[in-house]
Amino acid sequence: MGLQKPLLDPISDTKPGKNNLITDVPGVRVGQQTIITDRLKTGVTTILPTTENIFENKLAAAGLVINGFGKSTGLIQVEELGTLETPIVLTNTLSVGVAYNYLVKKALAENPQIGLETGTVNPLVMECNDGAVNNIRDLGVTEADIEAAFANCSEQFEEGCFGGGTGMCCYDLKGGIGSASRQIEIDGQTFTLGVLVMSNYGYVSDLNIYDQPIGQQISQLDEYHKRDEDGSIITIIATDIPFNSRQLKRIAKRSSVGITRTGSFIGNDSGEITLAFSTANQIKHEPKHQLMTHQAISDDQMDRYFRMTVSAVEEAIISSLVHATTTIDRKGQQRLSLTDALKKVANKDSAAAPQ
Amino acid sequence: MGLQKPLLDPISDTKPGKNNLITDVPGVRVGQQTIITDRLKTGVTTILPTTENIFENKLAAAGLVINGFGKSTGLIQVEELGTLETPIVLTNTLSVGVAYNYLVKKALAENPQIGLETGTVNPLVMECNDGAVNNIRDLGVTEADIEAAFANCSEQFEEGCFGGGTGMCCYDLKGGIGSASRQIEIDGQTFTLGVLVMSNYGYVSDLNIYDQPIGQQISQLDEYHKRDEDGSIITIIATDIPFNSRQLKRIAKRSSVGITRTGSFIGNDSGEITLAFSTANQIKHEPKHQLMTHQAISDDQMDRYFRMTVSAVEEAIISSLVHATTTIDRKGQQRLSLTDALKKVANKDSAAAPQ
Amino acid sequence: MGLQKPLLDPISDTKPGKNNLITDVPGVRVGQQTIITDRLKTGVTTILPTTENIFENKLAAAGLVINGFGKSTGLIQVEELGTLETPIVLTNTLSVGVAYNYLVKKALAENPQIGLETGTVNPLVMECNDGAVNNIRDLGVTEADIEAAFANCSEQFEEGCFGGGTGMCCYDLKGGIGSASRQIEIDGQTFTLGVLVMSNYGYVSDLNIYDQPIGQQISQLDEYHKRDEDGSIITIIATDIPFNSRQLKRIAKRSSVGITRTGSFIGNDSGEITLAFSTANQIKHEPKHQLMTHQAISDDQMDRYFRMTVSAVEEAIISSLVHATTTIDRKGQQRLSLTDALKKVANKDSAAAPQ
Amino acid sequence: MGLQKPLLDPISDTKPGKNNLITDVPGVRVGQQTIITDRLKTGVTTILPTTENIFENKLAAAGLVINGFGKSTGLIQVEELGTLETPIVLTNTLSVGVAYNYLVKKALAENPQIGLETGTVNPLVMECNDGAVNNIRDLGVTEADIEAAFANCSEQFEEGCFGGGTGMCCYDLKGGIGSASRQIEIDGQTFTLGVLVMSNYGYVSDLNIYDQPIGQQISQLDEYHKRDEDGSIITIIATDIPFNSRQLKRIAKRSSVGITRTGSFIGNDSGEITLAFSTANQIKHEPKHQLMTHQAISDDQMDRYFRMTVSAVEEAIISSLVHATTTIDRKGQQRLSLTDALKKVANKDSAAAPQ
Repeated sequence: MGLQKPLLDPISDTKPGKNNLITDVPGVRVGQQTIITDRLKTGVTTILPTTENIFENKLAAAGLVINGFGKSTGLIQVEELGTLETPIVLTNTLSVGVAYNYLVKKALAENPQIGLETGTVNPLVMECNDGAVNNIRDLGVTEADIEAAFANCSEQFEEGCFGGGTGMCCYDLKGGIGSASRQIEIDGQTFTLGVLVMSNYGYVSDLNIYDQPIGQQISQLDEYHKRDEDGSIITIIATDIPFNSRQLKRIAKRSSVGITRTGSFIGNDSGEITLAFSTANQIKHEPKHQLMTHQAISDDQMDRYFRMTVSAVEEAIISSLVHATTTIDRKGQQRLSLTDALKKVANKDSAAAPQ
Repeated sequence: MGLQKPLLDPISDTKPGKNNLITDVPGVRVGQQTIITDRLKTGVTTILPTTENIFENKLAAAGLVINGFGKSTGLIQVEELGTLETPIVLTNTLSVGVAYNYLVKKALAENPQIGLETGTVNPLVMECNDGAVNNIRDLGVTEADIEAAFANCSEQFEEGCFGGGTGMCCYDLKGGIGSASRQIEIDGQTFTLGVLVMSNYGYVSDLNIYDQPIGQQISQLDEYHKRDEDGSIITIIATDIPFNSRQLKRIAKRSSVGITRTGSFIGNDSGEITLAFSTANQIKHEPKHQLMTHQAISDDQMDRYFRMTVSAVEEAIISSLVHATTTIDRKGQQRLSLTDALKKVANKDSAAAPQ
Repeated sequence: MGLQKPLLDPISDTKPGKNNLITDVPGVRVGQQTIITDRLKTGVTTILPTTENIFENKLAAAGLVINGFGKSTGLIQVEELGTLETPIVLTNTLSVGVAYNYLVKKALAENPQIGLETGTVNPLVMECNDGAVNNIRDLGVTEADIEAAFANCSEQFEEGCFGGGTGMCCYDLKGGIGSASRQIEIDGQTFTLGVLVMSNYGYVSDLNIYDQPIGQQISQLDEYHKRDEDGSIITIIATDIPFNSRQLKRIAKRSSVGITRTGSFIGNDSGEITLAFSTANQIKHEPKHQLMTHQAISDDQMDRYFRMTVSAVEEAIISSLVHATTTIDRKGQQRLSLTDALKKVANKDSAAAPQ
Repeated sequence: MGLQKPLLDPISDTKPGKNNLITDVPGVRVGQQTIITDRLKTGVTTILPTTENIFENKLAAAGLVINGFGKSTGLIQVEELGTLETPIVLTNTLSVGVAYNYLVKKALAENPQIGLETGTVNPLVMECNDGAVNNIRDLGVTEADIEAAFANCSEQFEEGCFGGGTGMCCYDLKGGIGSASRQIEIDGQTFTLGVLVMSNYGYVSDLNIYDQPIGQQISQLDEYHKRDEDGSIITIIATDIPFNSRQLKRIAKRSSVGITRTGSFIGNDSGEITLAFSTANQIKHEPKHQLMTHQAISDDQMDRYFRMTVSAVEEAIISSLVHATTTIDRKGQQRLSLTDALKKVANKDSAAAPQ
């Protein structure tokens, strides 16, 4: 439900949608499957971008690679054609192949013409490495897990340690899934832009929340010492504003601002990849006419959309931290939640205070 | 074995290596698994770029997307880091997930530190759609097939309808795997550049072989009529010339010249993707020193390397056509080999000749 | 006037427009200033993309760098915003600054708000090195020359050794300005795509005209020996088909096919840069409404537009060669026209023929 | 002299070089010409990257376009060849042509073979729009000004309202030239990375200095109201660390983090462009040997270089604000310096304080 009280920053004065979630964008739904066993802490988060058959009714889309230490699939075709034609799966790095397989089977089931009367399909899978918490070498995600995540897609979903976010760590704290949304008026109509992140990047000492460098304090706790782990952050931006794919790439670029506002510097081994799509103009798989009209928007007013993007991405990341819960990692040590870390800082400070 | 008599074009006066195959580059080996059943005509071609552990000893590499209607994986990280860290698998589009899975398992088996002491791994899978010949919806490639292809990797391999090329069509003729190589002297040393293609693109009427527009003649045969199918071509370029990743991208770009010299125009739905790598400078996964020296080459003499690249890519494509054999497609019709098509043209001409 | 009899190639069955020139696209006009003195053989070619104020009514556009050994200006902003907001100047490499200056002054004169109520302007200047023929170090192009070129902009213009093409060489023959156009029906309306090239690239032995490797013969003439000069080709594509900037980039990419069909391989020091624009949807500098509608076209029928692009680019290059005339170069040697070179080949052959 | 006391942020614990300027990188020198008349407040800043002839001894380089609303020249060739072959000129947007001309003439004078025995040259000119302060339509920069800037190139230079920075505004305060440097040990040797910015971007309310959102306070002053002006920031990064061009692009990308840490969000009409070069490996214009060795560095330790880049870019921007002085703009209004704005805030607060 986003942050219950959105931490609005002066970067944008736009307000969240009903649930402060990506699903505030009409038609967008999210489902999750959380996998927790004695060895596994991993999962799957799935995003349905539209209530229609997306292969038949593609959506304008753009991918952006902020730092390319990542293994997402599908971005080559999105770059060439500017369209999204499958739902999106977020999971751990070594499960990308399983998710690709599932998306292929799902598309085959829904579109009997694929591979017969028409071509193939471009599955969109995005990932982070949850190996600090999860025994990622166990390859614990199955196609049934992905199916289960799709089965529970709805407008409501949990943030924090759920789905693909189950085993993720962010700023050396427990990370995971976070979401936020913003609404805006354009020529008298209300439009929504929503964000979902899977947060798994950053060093604790860099963490900064709305100008509070609280990572510096947390890094003084006994639990913390120099860490040097793989990171990544996947950002999904959905909107019903009629951006074309070039504009969506510009929007996606502003996700990097939201990310670095929380303190990080785009680390070497952080796969920071963003996918943005708009539900406004459907592109038919086999259009009846060659000439058509699309709703369009002017670039000269982009600043306000950029601001709301930065604001929503920043809040989505913070929301992932706020909703996450302390978790035992693969080595048996606690990965503190932000909340628990702040409590420990407070306790330490009060213990150190003169009596 | 390449073309037994290489069809050298004046674009470059360089000569082929020993076998006129990509495996003429020292250390490079190719394996294939061909899958033919009553419903399947598909398979896997695998490329081992080095005899060493490639995850520990990465190679300089670059990917190039000529036309992005394709689903290859791994290119994002190659672009960022300029390195290749797994072998390469070529297969059909819907089997990319299976190949990704296999490469993950292979890397885990060979590198017990992955996912524990170090990060994950970036699998390189490239694909074309063989759905015109193969029942691609059957998802007929298994991990065992990929394992079998790796198991028979060697310096010798078959061209034409083998491995990943089993079901591919090129210029509406039977396509598949083709290869060629070129050698050159640099400061007194002999270096090799080798190419392997999986050819699956083009319209018959466009086919041009060394300035002979023979596609025009073939397109007059009864077997041909307007076709409008998915295409693609995957090109792998291997060399021991010490190009860096920026230079390898420039080399990769010249593959587009080799491809279009055979008559095509880079079709809308052709996924034309090239990966180039150099075995000259190994990049250690965990280097002992931060400062090192690399062998390097000057850009100002690139023209001769560009020419040999164009020549080898063009010959590799023609070799894929020359080695392919007439095959019954998914709809029960013949996909003629180039050789059989030319015979039919000759027969038709002689039948039409005045007595 | 284009090739008087267009050399139509089977790559596309589309026919030229009225004049077989880029100016067949409604609103597009071309002007030239040819500078010939005892030391100078250079000039300027200018392209007016629209009859309206282009700063106020920007056009969808895309640039493509095929090989980046070039110094064109303005492409960064075209890439970001997808729009063209000045006319285009083609001249020699060292005169880019002069042309930039002129385009600034022209925009200031036509738009009094620039630098006061609104921002600046993005001049589009493209260039090739004519130093083989012209004393390029003399910096012989003045702002008055560019003004003169704009002053004579019309639907009619000369091809060959005129304007920016005056001193250019192509395939070691005399090159210069060439143009061609193609028309197509879309949903019952006629649309035009036009091309203008400034040709200055390639090695004589590679020249291939519609599958005739005539460069091989010409290279046997006494005039030819190994050359290794700077090259480049600038390609401008204009159309009234409503492509967006992403699609225009795809169209621009097919110019590389037209170029290499004439035999070249994208040389190391060839600056091969293409700019494509569409006059269909005007983008207002300060739109009154944020939401609007644009005419759009589907990617799934791009093949026929790609084919007509390849065909027009190829013919425009050949037209530049056919219209050029033999010219004395900077070193006092003849740069043969294609026509004269072919005559010499014919004379040599007849002299060698047995009596 | 940088900030006299560097405002070091925990993002990096590296220390500045001797002068805390880009010229701490051995061989790098900066010169400036400041132009102030009753109508003009503009100028030129020039950067000599090496004490040697840079055309003969090119340097590894990379450009990065963060937001492409900009008119810099030369980046196309830097992208293709990965080298820098002229000094760099920073000036106002409409003077790019003049600077291009000057760099051409300078290169011709120093390299008599250009345009005769060898090709042309790729001038590097970068710009921001100083039209809020300067009568930019007057085109006030001459080639003599640029010559003067080069003539006074040295290791010492002024920050703030000097050279190209004379008329620039940043966060609606007076901006201009800023610089900083950082040093680091690699395998026992000391290396330096230096930054110079020309700052001209951002909205006052967004300004954030090391986690102090002081722009919010300043925006309450009577002088401020909603503004919506063209912005831009040019960032030059110099280093003697042996990065290759791909790595320099990665370094350049981290400049975006330094920029946005000061509060901005990459505005629509901000031309944010970065050029990074390394003096470590010279690339000869005409190398004697084709095979050579280059010093190289491993990507796996990039984080510490990224951190020092972020830190130096952030400080260079703040330094541009700290050194700038209140200036009367084109409309006769004060553009406050950061120092004066903070004084006004303090005065206002004390006036408002209860007696």
